[in-house]
Amino acid sequence: MDLLKKKILEEGQVYAGNILKVDCFLNHQIDCTFLAEVGKEFHRLYQNEGVNKILTIEASGIAIGAIVAQEFGCPLVFAKKNKTKNIAGDVYTAPVESFTHGTTYNIMVSKKFLNPGDKVLIVDDFLAIGNALNGLISLVKESGAELVGCGTVIEKGYQHGGDKLRAKGIRVESLAIIESMDADKGEIVFRD
Amino acid sequence: MDLLKKKILEEGQVYAGNILKVDCFLNHQIDCTFLAEVGKEFHRLYQNEGVNKILTIEASGIAIGAIVAQEFGCPLVFAKKNKTKNIAGDVYTAPVESFTHGTTYNIMVSKKFLNPGDKVLIVDDFLAIGNALNGLISLVKESGAELVGCGTVIEKGYQHGGDKLRAKGIRVESLAIIESMDADKGEIVFRD
Repeated sequence: MDLLKKKILEEGQVYAGNILKVDCFLNHQIDCTFLAEVGKEFHRLYQNEGVNKILTIEASGIAIGAIVAQEFGCPLVFAKKNKTKNIAGDVYTAPVESFTHGTTYNIMVSKKFLNPGDKVLIVDDFLAIGNALNGLISLVKESGAELVGCGTVIEKGYQHGGDKLRAKGIRVESLAIIESMDADKGEIVFRD
Repeated sequence: MDLLKKKILEEGQVYAGNILKVDCFLNHQIDCTFLAEVGKEFHRLYQNEGVNKILTIEASGIAIGAIVAQEFGCPLVFAKKNKTKNIAGDVYTAPVESFTHGTTYNIMVSKKFLNPGDKVLIVDDFLAIGNALNGLISLVKESGAELVGCGTVIEKGYQHGGDKLRAKGIRVESLAIIESMDADKGEIVFRD
């Protein structure tokens, strides 16, 4: 997606440790006009697959999920990271290791909102090692719903999470795949 | 907002302890077609105020914030509840007491994204005691930005957080205000 690559090059910042900050348009301040284009692109890619539910994970997947769900005219469900008093009853749950924070947490979705017969598109802002996506995929499988595929805005190709999922036969569409970054030069190279 | 009241009556569940569960359309599974109407209503209420930034708090405010920001054609900023490695540098911060969880946490917004000259509309899913809104208002004041007002989807009128803010001269628009609930009878009474 050329608009996304342009925004990454113009507004993203590369730091040592392979950190790409896009908090000015994607995951802290969110450019919702741009996000509308992201929603249209995921809809174009998955429009013939009978998607009836978008699944994401709090927090930074939610804005993307909401806009994508509007394009598909279907509900968004977001997995929660911490059990709250307000989720009563049965949940699907999976452990997710956080690469950023060095911890493991449980994600959960109420069993009411994922069911056999659902055709689920998973969306998220970033795909790196793929831990969050793997957790979400495990929730979908546990529920008996059908996984249509995954849509991530930015994939860090050099961490190979997307490649591993594709090797398992899961459709993964990323709107920009970064092959390498150089913090000293501020350079970003995209996969063709 | 009649559509919202109808959804609360038809899909909401009242539990002992003044708990209203609307997780089937507002804060776990999200009805994004309905949310588009919420966005239009907040835009109708605040369209003449020069709003150039929507501010909310993770996690359940984000979907609403994204749709409202699309209506206004402006960015969304969401306050984060936990410091992450990916927020570097200076932040505005405020403590917020969680009524639901019985804990206090800090919320924060990068100083890059709230500035003098900004005209900020704060949105959230629920307004009860008003702790989250008060924290967000404090971030806006600290930044020197102008607070245009607050928009919440459901206000629990019997907890008086909204009334206290209005008494301070802050514009607070809630799309449905619940005056009382009865868990035994499953009854919900709205403020006129």
